[in-house]
Amino acid sequence: MAEEAAVRAQAETVRRLKQDKADPDEIAKEVAKLLDMKAQLGADEGKQKFVLKTPKGTRDFGPKEMAIRERAFKAIISCFKRHGAEVIDTPVFELKETLTGKYGEDSKLIYDLKDQGGELLSLRYDLTVPFARYLAMNKITNIKRYHIAKVYRRDNPAMTRGRYREFYQCDFDIAGQFDPMIPDAECLKIVHEILSDLQLGDFVIKVNDRRILDGMFAVCGVPDSKFRTICSSVDKLDKVPWEEVRSEMVGEKGLSPEAADRIGDYVQLHGGLDLIERLLQDPKLSQNKLAKEGLGDMKLLFEYLTLFGITGKISFDLSLARGLDYYTGVIFEAVLLQQENEPGEEPVSVGSVAGGGRYDGLVGMFDPKGRKVPCVGVSIGIERIFSILEQRLEASEEKIRTTETQVLVASAQKKLLEERLKLISELWDAGIKAEMLYKKNPKLLNQLQYCEDTGIPLVAIVGEQELKDGVVKLRIVATREEVNVRRESLVEEIRIRTSQC
Amino acid sequence: MAEEAAVRAQAETVRRLKQDKADPDEIAKEVAKLLDMKAQLGADEGKQKFVLKTPKGTRDFGPKEMAIRERAFKAIISCFKRHGAEVIDTPVFELKETLTGKYGEDSKLIYDLKDQGGELLSLRYDLTVPFARYLAMNKITNIKRYHIAKVYRRDNPAMTRGRYREFYQCDFDIAGQFDPMIPDAECLKIVHEILSDLQLGDFVIKVNDRRILDGMFAVCGVPDSKFRTICSSVDKLDKVPWEEVRSEMVGEKGLSPEAADRIGDYVQLHGGLDLIERLLQDPKLSQNKLAKEGLGDMKLLFEYLTLFGITGKISFDLSLARGLDYYTGVIFEAVLLQQENEPGEEPVSVGSVAGGGRYDGLVGMFDPKGRKVPCVGVSIGIERIFSILEQRLEASEEKIRTTETQVLVASAQKKLLEERLKLISELWDAGIKAEMLYKKNPKLLNQLQYCEDTGIPLVAIVGEQELKDGVVKLRIVATREEVNVRRESLVEEIRIRTSQC
Repeated sequence: MAEEAAVRAQAETVRRLKQDKADPDEIAKEVAKLLDMKAQLGADEGKQKFVLKTPKGTRDFGPKEMAIRERAFKAIISCFKRHGAEVIDTPVFELKETLTGKYGEDSKLIYDLKDQGGELLSLRYDLTVPFARYLAMNKITNIKRYHIAKVYRRDNPAMTRGRYREFYQCDFDIAGQFDPMIPDAECLKIVHEILSDLQLGDFVIKVNDRRILDGMFAVCGVPDSKFRTICSSVDKLDKVPWEEVRSEMVGEKGLSPEAADRIGDYVQLHGGLDLIERLLQDPKLSQNKLAKEGLGDMKLLFEYLTLFGITGKISFDLSLARGLDYYTGVIFEAVLLQQENEPGEEPVSVGSVAGGGRYDGLVGMFDPKGRKVPCVGVSIGIERIFSILEQRLEASEEKIRTTETQVLVASAQKKLLEERLKLISELWDAGIKAEMLYKKNPKLLNQLQYCEDTGIPLVAIVGEQELKDGVVKLRIVATREEVNVRRESLVEEIRIRTSQC
Repeated sequence: MAEEAAVRAQAETVRRLKQDKADPDEIAKEVAKLLDMKAQLGADEGKQKFVLKTPKGTRDFGPKEMAIRERAFKAIISCFKRHGAEVIDTPVFELKETLTGKYGEDSKLIYDLKDQGGELLSLRYDLTVPFARYLAMNKITNIKRYHIAKVYRRDNPAMTRGRYREFYQCDFDIAGQFDPMIPDAECLKIVHEILSDLQLGDFVIKVNDRRILDGMFAVCGVPDSKFRTICSSVDKLDKVPWEEVRSEMVGEKGLSPEAADRIGDYVQLHGGLDLIERLLQDPKLSQNKLAKEGLGDMKLLFEYLTLFGITGKISFDLSLARGLDYYTGVIFEAVLLQQENEPGEEPVSVGSVAGGGRYDGLVGMFDPKGRKVPCVGVSIGIERIFSILEQRLEASEEKIRTTETQVLVASAQKKLLEERLKLISELWDAGIKAEMLYKKNPKLLNQLQYCEDTGIPLVAIVGEQELKDGVVKLRIVATREEVNVRRESLVEEIRIRTSQC
């Protein structure tokens, strides 16, 4: 490599200068240059050749990002709890065979663990398959649960757009044999509540049904064996134009041009109850048992969504397919709409932030006797939401606190470390959130500056006179007001003054 | 295999019956038998032969376990926040080289990911090394943070004793150049607060210092090159008796019997300030620079711990070694003591629940220029704490709620699904935690039973008469009292009646 050659040349320069007993300053300059080059190359012999980074497609969350993340989680969890969900957790990896055959074409994106003896393991790809495994394993036929955890996909990361290889999913699912469309409608209500609560701007929730898609494929002349692969092609319609999808269907997947064109006519349709009614009268679709079932349930769903008052954001969209193999009924996906579009223009979607659907067969795939547990659920894709919240926060110049500290225990004079330690210990034991600087004799100015920097609202100042008088000087950072508070009332005083925290 | 042959024979029977156009009932019976045999064998071609389990050493957390886990986390997080910590998160895997050379003999327990092209990755083994990598990468020289996340070790699981391959660590660390022993003392205060708060029974926090150990090894005649491996042997003293450790030192590790015996004399010592003073006078130790430094700091530490009022639970223990390579100063470990011991008997430790220490060199291992960031931290090992809390809860017969639902929306008559949907939607939109049964016409008794089972305190009953009157009947589950509440006051009434929730 050219860089390594350059380092060697520089090392030779240094060697020669030293040999020639050149000016020490000059030697030092060249040595510094050499070290710098080595550091850049990471080729320092005494050390590992570290690349100081997180793995591709992953990132750290620093305190600021965590504060934003916890805000978003709080909104989501409180919605899930509002709907009566319990919470579960499963291991980050599963037996490899647990994940096999569940994800269709996406299976290639699963992370496998190295075979180090023992079981073959893979990192979870989503939370749905582990949930189904959990239900089958524990013979649970009835549960409403949420699960918030990281999942792993060896995808091409696009981190600025919020696509990572390690990312959070926030899943809410309802398992059990119930009357049609009631749990399904609740899942859509949940998406609506969360996206409204987070104020992410305008959105639309697209809804379709796998049975309508399959019926449509059948009446368009797609052979049974090609249903899943043609479905995968349709799934790309949110990213690529119809012409490209069509040529994939005909070229790569061997569908007849006539069948593709018939599909093309259907997948451009989207609307509400009116469209459902129209399709129920469609001469071809209405003859197909699956499509009819799906359309009937879709009508019921829209009735329930009307009662929930949320049909304004719901679009029955025949182009929605969802990639995963395991869906069997209703499917849906929420997309945020671009804010700044010209009047009269169609809103452009900027990306999916939630998706889900019904998967009545998945649990049965794990049950030794194939017993089915009908399920429907929704997954909130939180990474894109984080990006938006981060951008918004940056734009707003709101200063976000990353700690909750109520008071800094400080001293105005030297030699008061022991008194500070005694006081802070009392405060901690009384449940007060308190910090101190880890210096024997910190300057008062530095202590006050620390409060400014981190947003600590109060300072409890220990001084010799105050110690004699049995008081502590309490300073309110915002107003610079100072009051003497009797030591035995200090905890109460801090509580009162920070009760809004 | 015999079973497979039997399945093939049965399949042949079915084939022949069909060919012979036999009685459909008989065919169906034989087909059912065949399917059953296939399912038992798991050899159904459409299905995998599943082992329905989580990977070795891992487990699911169901709603009850999660409720307990969240209680413990709440206590721990509120302590960390009380001490002014920020929070961060890092990816579950790191570049393999990031973990290389940090864990000594334990490195063999690291999970590697399969090489699927791209970077070589490993699951994190603890949260300390990723923290150091995070500091170096972001050039952070000053932070107090906590991090609660799962770590991974291919250890021999002992799940009843709370040892898993996937388990949580709750870490609190202070990074930065500060005056000696102030942050170190705070870490011990934190362990003391958390273990007291969780009421896990009596405990002791053992404290030592790597410099004292190294000094001790030196004066006992251990060659420099054997310090780390002899340290690993000493580390086993909490699990195996001295005689075994001695024979490992002499037999496997080639230490002279005299040196081993000298170590044996030291490692049986434990005590408080008195012991520190005595060792500061020890003719051999006091001659060793490292030991003297360590003992001086230990004395300072005990002074600070006296101000915190926690020396009663602290034991300076020369047998404490800690396995990990990266410690450079103070080390400590908290162990729970057995409850039922005879009067006069020494309390027996039942297991470590927290540990930590100072690691001043670790960040420098990642920095291209080797710049050091002194760090000290503590890790709470939460799994054993979960086990204890679970056992205690089971013994107490306390009924733990796994949801927070305030009200069930119910109906007394049929055909009121739409009214229930309308009412529950209103409640959700007002922030009330509400559930309903997903049935068109559920029986009132089943609805009330659901409240009993899940601890929902209120039922809002929709009935035809009530709808006409503009009221909802609110039933208090515990007392069976029923009151009519005007619909517009319902939200407020539910809030008041569940304000303790």
